[in-house]
Amino acid sequence: MSQYWSKVVHALTPYVPGEQPKINNLIKLNTNENPYPPSPLALAAIREAVSEDLRLYPDPNADQLKQTIAAYYQLSPQQVFVGNSSDEVLAHVFLALLKHEQPILFPDITYSFYPVYCGLYQIAYQTIRLQDDFSLHIADYQRPNGGIIFPNPNAPTGRLLALAEIENLLCANRDSVVVIDEAYVDFGGTSAIALVDQFPNLLVVQTLSKSRSLAGLRVGLAIGHPDLIAALERVKNSFNSYPLDRLALAGAVAAFKDDAYFKQTCAAVIASRTELVAQLEQLGFEVLPSSANFVLIRHPAHDAKQIQDYLRSKSIIVRHFTQARIDQHLRVTIGNDAQCASLIVALRDFLQGH
Amino acid sequence: MSQYWSKVVHALTPYVPGEQPKINNLIKLNTNENPYPPSPLALAAIREAVSEDLRLYPDPNADQLKQTIAAYYQLSPQQVFVGNSSDEVLAHVFLALLKHEQPILFPDITYSFYPVYCGLYQIAYQTIRLQDDFSLHIADYQRPNGGIIFPNPNAPTGRLLALAEIENLLCANRDSVVVIDEAYVDFGGTSAIALVDQFPNLLVVQTLSKSRSLAGLRVGLAIGHPDLIAALERVKNSFNSYPLDRLALAGAVAAFKDDAYFKQTCAAVIASRTELVAQLEQLGFEVLPSSANFVLIRHPAHDAKQIQDYLRSKSIIVRHFTQARIDQHLRVTIGNDAQCASLIVALRDFLQGH
Repeated sequence: MSQYWSKVVHALTPYVPGEQPKINNLIKLNTNENPYPPSPLALAAIREAVSEDLRLYPDPNADQLKQTIAAYYQLSPQQVFVGNSSDEVLAHVFLALLKHEQPILFPDITYSFYPVYCGLYQIAYQTIRLQDDFSLHIADYQRPNGGIIFPNPNAPTGRLLALAEIENLLCANRDSVVVIDEAYVDFGGTSAIALVDQFPNLLVVQTLSKSRSLAGLRVGLAIGHPDLIAALERVKNSFNSYPLDRLALAGAVAAFKDDAYFKQTCAAVIASRTELVAQLEQLGFEVLPSSANFVLIRHPAHDAKQIQDYLRSKSIIVRHFTQARIDQHLRVTIGNDAQCASLIVALRDFLQGH
Repeated sequence: MSQYWSKVVHALTPYVPGEQPKINNLIKLNTNENPYPPSPLALAAIREAVSEDLRLYPDPNADQLKQTIAAYYQLSPQQVFVGNSSDEVLAHVFLALLKHEQPILFPDITYSFYPVYCGLYQIAYQTIRLQDDFSLHIADYQRPNGGIIFPNPNAPTGRLLALAEIENLLCANRDSVVVIDEAYVDFGGTSAIALVDQFPNLLVVQTLSKSRSLAGLRVGLAIGHPDLIAALERVKNSFNSYPLDRLALAGAVAAFKDDAYFKQTCAAVIASRTELVAQLEQLGFEVLPSSANFVLIRHPAHDAKQIQDYLRSKSIIVRHFTQARIDQHLRVTIGNDAQCASLIVALRDFLQGH
């Protein structure tokens, strides 16, 4: 607290990201990183960009990256926005497209950064209760609103909403922007990008941090009607002209070009998830159906925090949220097969000891 | 324009950065990049960080970089904030520390991003007219205000304000934050960082884009009292938890550690500036005294835009601002000696032809 702080700062409740421990040899299943490394072509492209040219500014408009993404999804570059992570993209989305008279709507259990953005930009919001099985019911969103946003698959539940449901929502909600946050869609969902040409109020947000294994590079994107993209560009150019550095631009372009590697690693994560879910269920865990690179689990007989602490003592980190309705759950990132096996061994030991 | 835009977006007038042409072999003297490459140690550190670890998030708190900067300036890490370029840092500064009831103050001729931030965050401002010789008169800032910000040396004039003058300003202005934007200070100024322990309302902003030759990497920083830094952290953690990627963190740490290279390249730019100023004056140009890596020049007999166009036809790009009072000036970045020589040749040809 300080006399020099603006009123906004006083009122903020910042987001708390998952722990990024500085200890090696931990099995880190707490922040949904990909267990597989980035595409070798992406690493090679970044290496090539480490040159004396770093003295020069990057392209402020990221034209080559926008063209690459547009070609990948068969869109025009005017339908593509890029930023320094999907968190930055989302921040601009909230200010540019979700700040209206009516409150915006999002689920009661969802990405916990959404209410933080609302605090930052003083945007009114209403949370809509997920069903008891944590599924999202489209009919609940049919009320006056300044915008609608949710992840698909949702986080931290992992539950997927079918594309037909999103289409129904868009048909019923034409007067405000609907943002589908697809951070995890590549692990088993169908992207709503297929609908952007039909619905001028649909914006799809994606990240390279999960399915493209580039959390350390910070690249996110949004896809939608050129009018929506133009709003984001206006905010971006009033905030920071060059949000993506030369290395991030080079790596992101190459990552989109290496589609074979992308599909192979996504398939490997999905296969590990199937195996892990079966093993967790054998141990008596309830596992929500997941289309993401994590599972939300609970054990009917054991306290979530206690399980988390035990795993930590075995050098395995998973995420526990203190929020009501999920405070007896743990969110577990899908690791590689060896990591999944270690997790299962540790959980079995825990259950045998208690 | 779109029904989906927020009111804020409708009202924005975004910043227009200097051109980043995609043509090679231009002599690019328009965006104040350093003519010398980044430190070889910085490039080596970045190269080492291009690894499979890019699948992992970076340290959201950038602890190692803050410790390095703190050690460099003999401060504590709690006095250091870092961000994705000084433009991003400034954006957070405007929202966190300059948004109050009273209007903020900055010079009429200064970094043209300041009024853009005010538009983004709806901050009232008053511009204070520079003296006729474009010097900044501290007494003009002694009026009620919600904050004061200016670059030192100022941009695009290059004129430096002595540290004693800034101290006078701080003594007379204790109730609001004074931000000194030191993007260019390493080319001949004295940093106000020396005053942060004395004045809890002083914030100093710097960038690695100019004197450390890393415009392509996007790293900026702010130094001040821990209370001011805490406000910036609150906004940053409500906007984007991980603004600096792993490569930017690695490169920035190494750049601060290679002080010999930094001092050598700054000295080379200063020497080139001295030489260039003498040659420009010989050609009849008026050159404002500069402590930056650029000079603001005018020729009493020739139209600035016409000179700019001629230089462009010779593949030399310089920056022209259409703003009143400086619309007959050109801002010319100090290149290496060969680039400066080419500039002088072209200007001599222009003057002989007209």
